[in-house]
Amino acid sequence: MKATLKLAGTASLALLAAAGAALAQDTAAAPEAPQYALASETAYIFNTLLFLLGGFLVMWMAAGFAMLEAGMVRAKNVSMQCLKNITLYSIAGLMFWITGYNLMYTGVDGGYIGSFGPYAFDAVGGNALDTGYSTASDWFFQMVFCATTASIVSGTLAERIRLWPFLAFTVVLTGFIYPIAGSWQWGAGWLNGMGFSDFAGSTLVHSVGGWAALAGALVLGARTGKYTANGVHPMPGSSMPLATLGTFILWLGWFGFNGASQLAMGTIGDVTDISRIFANTNMAAAAGVVVAVILTQVLYKKVDVTMALNGALAGLVSITAEPLAPSVWQAVFIGAVGGVIVVFAVPLLDKLKIDDVVGAIPVHLVAGIWGTLIVPLSNSDATYSVQIIGIVAYGVFTFVISLVVWLILKSTIGIRASAEEEALGLDKAEVGIEAYPEFGQGSQRV
Amino acid sequence: MKATLKLAGTASLALLAAAGAALAQDTAAAPEAPQYALASETAYIFNTLLFLLGGFLVMWMAAGFAMLEAGMVRAKNVSMQCLKNITLYSIAGLMFWITGYNLMYTGVDGGYIGSFGPYAFDAVGGNALDTGYSTASDWFFQMVFCATTASIVSGTLAERIRLWPFLAFTVVLTGFIYPIAGSWQWGAGWLNGMGFSDFAGSTLVHSVGGWAALAGALVLGARTGKYTANGVHPMPGSSMPLATLGTFILWLGWFGFNGASQLAMGTIGDVTDISRIFANTNMAAAAGVVVAVILTQVLYKKVDVTMALNGALAGLVSITAEPLAPSVWQAVFIGAVGGVIVVFAVPLLDKLKIDDVVGAIPVHLVAGIWGTLIVPLSNSDATYSVQIIGIVAYGVFTFVISLVVWLILKSTIGIRASAEEEALGLDKAEVGIEAYPEFGQGSQRV
Amino acid sequence: MKATLKLAGTASLALLAAAGAALAQDTAAAPEAPQYALASETAYIFNTLLFLLGGFLVMWMAAGFAMLEAGMVRAKNVSMQCLKNITLYSIAGLMFWITGYNLMYTGVDGGYIGSFGPYAFDAVGGNALDTGYSTASDWFFQMVFCATTASIVSGTLAERIRLWPFLAFTVVLTGFIYPIAGSWQWGAGWLNGMGFSDFAGSTLVHSVGGWAALAGALVLGARTGKYTANGVHPMPGSSMPLATLGTFILWLGWFGFNGASQLAMGTIGDVTDISRIFANTNMAAAAGVVVAVILTQVLYKKVDVTMALNGALAGLVSITAEPLAPSVWQAVFIGAVGGVIVVFAVPLLDKLKIDDVVGAIPVHLVAGIWGTLIVPLSNSDATYSVQIIGIVAYGVFTFVISLVVWLILKSTIGIRASAEEEALGLDKAEVGIEAYPEFGQGSQRV
Repeated sequence: MKATLKLAGTASLALLAAAGAALAQDTAAAPEAPQYALASETAYIFNTLLFLLGGFLVMWMAAGFAMLEAGMVRAKNVSMQCLKNITLYSIAGLMFWITGYNLMYTGVDGGYIGSFGPYAFDAVGGNALDTGYSTASDWFFQMVFCATTASIVSGTLAERIRLWPFLAFTVVLTGFIYPIAGSWQWGAGWLNGMGFSDFAGSTLVHSVGGWAALAGALVLGARTGKYTANGVHPMPGSSMPLATLGTFILWLGWFGFNGASQLAMGTIGDVTDISRIFANTNMAAAAGVVVAVILTQVLYKKVDVTMALNGALAGLVSITAEPLAPSVWQAVFIGAVGGVIVVFAVPLLDKLKIDDVVGAIPVHLVAGIWGTLIVPLSNSDATYSVQIIGIVAYGVFTFVISLVVWLILKSTIGIRASAEEEALGLDKAEVGIEAYPEFGQGSQRV
Repeated sequence: MKATLKLAGTASLALLAAAGAALAQDTAAAPEAPQYALASETAYIFNTLLFLLGGFLVMWMAAGFAMLEAGMVRAKNVSMQCLKNITLYSIAGLMFWITGYNLMYTGVDGGYIGSFGPYAFDAVGGNALDTGYSTASDWFFQMVFCATTASIVSGTLAERIRLWPFLAFTVVLTGFIYPIAGSWQWGAGWLNGMGFSDFAGSTLVHSVGGWAALAGALVLGARTGKYTANGVHPMPGSSMPLATLGTFILWLGWFGFNGASQLAMGTIGDVTDISRIFANTNMAAAAGVVVAVILTQVLYKKVDVTMALNGALAGLVSITAEPLAPSVWQAVFIGAVGGVIVVFAVPLLDKLKIDDVVGAIPVHLVAGIWGTLIVPLSNSDATYSVQIIGIVAYGVFTFVISLVVWLILKSTIGIRASAEEEALGLDKAEVGIEAYPEFGQGSQRV
Repeated sequence: MKATLKLAGTASLALLAAAGAALAQDTAAAPEAPQYALASETAYIFNTLLFLLGGFLVMWMAAGFAMLEAGMVRAKNVSMQCLKNITLYSIAGLMFWITGYNLMYTGVDGGYIGSFGPYAFDAVGGNALDTGYSTASDWFFQMVFCATTASIVSGTLAERIRLWPFLAFTVVLTGFIYPIAGSWQWGAGWLNGMGFSDFAGSTLVHSVGGWAALAGALVLGARTGKYTANGVHPMPGSSMPLATLGTFILWLGWFGFNGASQLAMGTIGDVTDISRIFANTNMAAAAGVVVAVILTQVLYKKVDVTMALNGALAGLVSITAEPLAPSVWQAVFIGAVGGVIVVFAVPLLDKLKIDDVVGAIPVHLVAGIWGTLIVPLSNSDATYSVQIIGIVAYGVFTFVISLVVWLILKSTIGIRASAEEEALGLDKAEVGIEAYPEFGQGSQRV
């Protein structure tokens, strides 16, 4: 629970500082003892540094999504995915400042929404020791989570959504949907009050992105020719090494995603917990890969590299709701189930004729639900009933609002490229620049 | 102002330590009180860690330039760009040790140049607490800035410059031009004495690189067939995903570039400032992207992905001269103008028949001038007149010396590949290894 | 010497803390003085943070190997290299927990092997200040070294080894061979007792990986058609930019590899040493590049970009056995010889008809031996005789055991793809997904 942890982090600072002060003075203690001040200052720097480190690692995940998606779409749509990814990251940065942060974190008070208005950073040379960390570092760290949510949507809808409606949805998602939903838990809103638990965002980030993507996929429809009378027509991605690179980038960034969600590094307890989180996060991803590799070998007699990559991501999403409490065995189990989910959910979606170009719905939505549901296995503060309430609440809210927004966009500016544009490829139709002008015949093939 | 900040950083350490010591002792205080020592030691570690973190992030920018350029040149010249980028980074490392660091930072004393000779790092187990940070960490951090300058030149001159004259210029640039020019400001030279302000190098790094590139482009001439009687012949880059990856790498590295230019992290004021810098840096880049996307849509009816990428970079360069003082609104404005600059300066250069393969001159030179010029908007210590003096001084010095060096190289070993080599591609002509031997017909096309 | 340094690090913490305590009390001193506790806590956080930073940087090297190998194999085998690299990293994570860590680090006591059984991390909120760092952070950092060893093998055997025998070998290598061999030195085993010196693993990681790869290459044989009556048939890699990206990733990761092998950052002496290590590591790599560039120009009249990349890596491997003690001049010399080694060892291997697809044996084995051998040049605690004993011991053990394992795998499940599968490419034969389905005719060419 990010919000709770944040409070706990700050509280523990105070406690520890107090303990330090107590320790410092065997008998009578002055609360303003020098050790207190010193511990607070050092802790402030460590906490802020954690946000900055975690922040740049999660920012790097934007590149990971860009590469994963660039590798998983056909050559004629690669420039478009690149363009969408760098632009959505930019929009998230602007919107999470204009409305997002305050909607999510300011004055939620057990309710359903924060307050409106742009966020104000620390002054230059800020010296507000009592916050426990720099507010700008916190903003930066929370902003990159918001951007991650938007990245998830981008992959599912690739190869047939037009640029501008996608960007318009991104504005709504990053400026309103994600922050309002997020306020319920990390903003210390009603779900947090009930005891819902989602450490780093299996639900708040990944499922929210997944629900928004699912709503979009339903409104948008499948790519032309994907589902035929003769079954599913494969449309293989243009570059497996780029997809692999993207996955490695995401895996790396996830250490910041989960690790820095501890929200404090100024005590040995906190930094030790961050270390556990690093190890558990890696274990879950590793288990997701190994399970996906073995399962695809058994089921299909060949090892599908895209399943191995998505197995890693599903393991990572699964452990994200609770990367701290699990024992190593539990982390391996949680991630391994994530790997199983991907192997079965990807073809299931195709059966339902829901066209998810990169497998983002299995990875982020389904594994996100699994990860959130299983929290009580290792964390006794969480209960299955409240976890289900949270999962349903986030699902209903995000899916319904997203559906409405997609439908409005569809009925106004339109969201889908024309059949000719889709056949030509969005790179030529909307970007004007081919991704690989000298290789193959991207736009003529498939 | 890096030099000033560096002194200020160290000074503030001492002040803060003194304050801590004062706090520690309600009444009479011994300056060598234990809290003082402790604070200094912790601050030393934080400061050094900042240089190491910033250093590896900026080192990573060398890979960003390599990928950006590999994606923006045609397939027949990709191996050459890869080779140039890893070699120029290596040369910068060697030259900034042999002559660079001391020319830039040692004994400038308000003058125009430092002293000659290789730089000496700390001894093993170095314990010189009074410096406030490890000297080797400082060297490493400053070295990667020097390498960045050389990376800028590489992109502009791609596809027709030969390897060895380029490397020869790199030796002069990284060993002499950049350090001598840099000494004027960050080495506490004459411009620093006048009150010139360039926090992280809009001018010292980016414009200097841009001026050197411009001089080279003028001496070298455009690629054969680029400017014809029928107008500008487009020569599209071979891989948009690699260009996108490069841009994301540069964006990530920029947090180190600007953030660690605070030069100290051992006080809460410093780490809070670093956080502001992270947020402002991200805001400016985001604004640059969004503006470039909107502008190209309006102007060309299609969104040019290379403009979006260069918009990010121009936003980053623009905010680099002063990433700390601006409010968020100002950071957005500064970055947005960077985006405008790129959209208009790229075709303007083509009108002038200056062939800049990756758009480095608009991004690094023009946006660098803009960023430096606008510092007084947010930083009241700077004045427009002194900023202009600095911009002109750096421009004249770098452009003239670079021009002379390029002309000498041209008249001695020659700098340009023959028409046949250019048509064949530099990969076959000089590297002997094609970048993509199995794809397309790189060397036969365009 | 990692183990020794680890002890030294902890010891120096205690010493420094004690010194702090002594300083704190001008006259009589209580050892449990508040400054002692504070210094230890701050040092604990710094030490743990170093492991986490170093750990994620070295984890990132897994992506570096993946990209390097994806770029150096032909298009028809790229998906397979991607799959192998993400899977081997996952296996290493699981095995280094199940058996590896304890075999390497627990209860070696001057002997030849540690104890069996999975490793237990810190409890949540762990507070064991006396260890000096979080045990989970240490596990994470050591695990990524284990993974690096497996990555080395992957490149050499590419394009003809089947997936499952490779993965089976990886299980043995990461779960048993690497940890048992590692215990001799970093686990405070017999070689450490003799005074062998290998700071960050020129021998323990790189040569061990190289010996295992050499054994595999001998058992597996060369690619069909590589060595013909008419000489060596070149099989150029499919993507030089990916190979370049991989090299830059490895270079970046190496700052974590060597820097964090200092194993402590909680004193100014330690962080100063880490800074020296950063600088020396960069210098050696830079020298390796420059020498390889010059040598290939002189020898072949063209500058081979793959040699420049391998020059960087060889410089990095060479400095890894002792990145702290050398002066800058010595670091340049050590790395430069690494560059020479690569330029001559790559064709030599071809003469011996040992088919090493990416040049891993020259880079990791031969340069690893060189780096280990030259330690006494700068580190007076090491002697040439003991260094040779260590090199031979690691070589004999790793090569013989690896050979046995490869031979067992060959005679049971078989290790080599059939001639048809090899011609078709492993992507179609075993992965079922082509790396670049729209480009060129990967599987029909070469």
